[in-house]
Amino acid sequence: MTDRRLAEDVRIVGSGLLGTSIGLGLAARGVDVVMDDVSPSARRLAVDYGAGREPAAGDAPGLIVVCVPPDVTASIVARELAAYPDALVTDVASVKAAPLAELRAMGADLGRYLGTHPMAGRERGGAISARADLFVGRPWVLAGHDDISYRRAGAIEDMILDLGAVPIELDVERHDRSVALVSHVPQVVSSLLAARLSEGDGAALQLAGQGLRDVTRVAGSDPALWVQILGANAPAVVDVLRPLRDDLERVIAALDAPEAPGSRRAIADALAAGNTGVARIPGKHGQDRRFSQIVVMVDDTPGELARLLTEIGEAGVNMEDLRLEHSPGAQIGLAEISVVPEAEQRLVAELEERGWTIAGAFA
Amino acid sequence: MTDRRLAEDVRIVGSGLLGTSIGLGLAARGVDVVMDDVSPSARRLAVDYGAGREPAAGDAPGLIVVCVPPDVTASIVARELAAYPDALVTDVASVKAAPLAELRAMGADLGRYLGTHPMAGRERGGAISARADLFVGRPWVLAGHDDISYRRAGAIEDMILDLGAVPIELDVERHDRSVALVSHVPQVVSSLLAARLSEGDGAALQLAGQGLRDVTRVAGSDPALWVQILGANAPAVVDVLRPLRDDLERVIAALDAPEAPGSRRAIADALAAGNTGVARIPGKHGQDRRFSQIVVMVDDTPGELARLLTEIGEAGVNMEDLRLEHSPGAQIGLAEISVVPEAEQRLVAELEERGWTIAGAFA
Repeated sequence: MTDRRLAEDVRIVGSGLLGTSIGLGLAARGVDVVMDDVSPSARRLAVDYGAGREPAAGDAPGLIVVCVPPDVTASIVARELAAYPDALVTDVASVKAAPLAELRAMGADLGRYLGTHPMAGRERGGAISARADLFVGRPWVLAGHDDISYRRAGAIEDMILDLGAVPIELDVERHDRSVALVSHVPQVVSSLLAARLSEGDGAALQLAGQGLRDVTRVAGSDPALWVQILGANAPAVVDVLRPLRDDLERVIAALDAPEAPGSRRAIADALAAGNTGVARIPGKHGQDRRFSQIVVMVDDTPGELARLLTEIGEAGVNMEDLRLEHSPGAQIGLAEISVVPEAEQRLVAELEERGWTIAGAFA
Repeated sequence: MTDRRLAEDVRIVGSGLLGTSIGLGLAARGVDVVMDDVSPSARRLAVDYGAGREPAAGDAPGLIVVCVPPDVTASIVARELAAYPDALVTDVASVKAAPLAELRAMGADLGRYLGTHPMAGRERGGAISARADLFVGRPWVLAGHDDISYRRAGAIEDMILDLGAVPIELDVERHDRSVALVSHVPQVVSSLLAARLSEGDGAALQLAGQGLRDVTRVAGSDPALWVQILGANAPAVVDVLRPLRDDLERVIAALDAPEAPGSRRAIADALAAGNTGVARIPGKHGQDRRFSQIVVMVDDTPGELARLLTEIGEAGVNMEDLRLEHSPGAQIGLAEISVVPEAEQRLVAELEERGWTIAGAFA
């Protein structure tokens, strides 16, 4: 890593959430960023936000980052490869096999192209939601193939590191299968569940708790973008949806005859498989580590939560995570604090000594 | 409400999470609570936690709260109605139509029974997870029927208010349909999705983000309890799962032929229906109000988040919600703070003045 350097003279094509965020992050590190977009008004907005400068005659970018919707990624990458014959080109689309295959079919110069995919985003898109730190600490996949040299790929990895992200190498097929599982199918499932609420009894929604809110949060995402993502990764998504559908059929059949022999077992098996699956998701900082939770009652007034966290800090304990529970109709909050198990007992004692009500503590 | 009084001489049957939490809450308000359980060791544990005293000869409870698994709720309620002919009896099972029908079939005295259901719980059960404030601010359904008088139902409502919960009246069928929609089906969907992860590529899980974590969180719940809940509310659950299955089939068919006419439209419709549904979930405090979000970069060291919240408190702004984003591999955090829209601009200005990096702000 001794020869790591900032990417220089970067051209970004597409000024949406990702393009603008990359521009902001690189510009903040002193890189000369050119921001381009098929829409002049979108481009001007991103330039106004400080994500780069307008294109000019004679621009000779060393690196081009294509940040356009998946549907047009391959054609724009091909255009940029042709227009800038000395430049390295990457893209950030959520699917990787289809664009590579399209580029290969077009006869594009794959020796100068390497697709990537930052695992970062927001439910809201556009330059207006962009932020220079969008990628900090996030995985960013390099979708490797055999036509680009190790040295050239290194320049793209440098850009990823400069933006604070964590590079992960996966080939295009493995990338697409992976994101189908951890991103695309969860999106579909969340949307299908949320869709059931669109017809539901209003009284039912009064009973909504944190569980429902969590399961449906990503259902707020942009349909136009997701139609493209799902369409471009359809085979991998269907490969996960089909067994999920089969499991769902088994649960429906069991619930149609809950007293029949085997029905309870079928339902229990589905729930137990869910336990097994959720336990495999790594925790914060990419570790599989489990934390202890401490639940503290906090008045819903300015400064109370701050006082709690100040006192946690004074106790020398680092919170791994913090969750405020919603309390419909009440002016009180519950703060669920995650700490390393070794710190749990000491922190509970310290907080109780300072007069806090500990509503629960468990590993 | 002038004649509201604390419930007196309460007998709790079942010392799990709900029974122990009710006992803790009532005992804290000076109620004489008797804690009973078919398991003497479970009962002693709840008594040790302070959730009540051991049963004694001559106990004459005015109110009995049955907190046992759904499968045995009706038979225990019937036993208690018979054993204490002057007592009012309630239960807290997650399903309400089946126990009422069973009791009616047994010829139980329904003039002294009213089922209820607190919308509170944790992924972890047992007395060890119990807390006196478990119900604070939560909806608690009174599942009304015509055999119990208004006056008697009032005593149960008083207990609910004493525990800090928000009483909501729904008849048993409407309750069961409502919880199928907002609780039971989300549990099934979350478990089915999480089950897919149990076979997934380990590399895929490295790419897991907050979206996957949210959708699968409740998949950690206890299968044994959920088998009973789903079995007891099977018809209402299936009524929601079936159209969800049909929607899923349409998405699978569309993804099987993503370029066919109508496929993109079918996928977009499913995603848009999800948008509509999620927008119907009420926000914190039962309001439909939308908040503005401000995202602030926070070093992952003790005291930093506390300092941020202290300064928010000093600015006189009340946080409506706070979310810490996980940053796998990085020692940095992003705090997403929800505030009323009127406070957004002022808070951003105050925080920037104090040197905080605002990574984003949006309504």
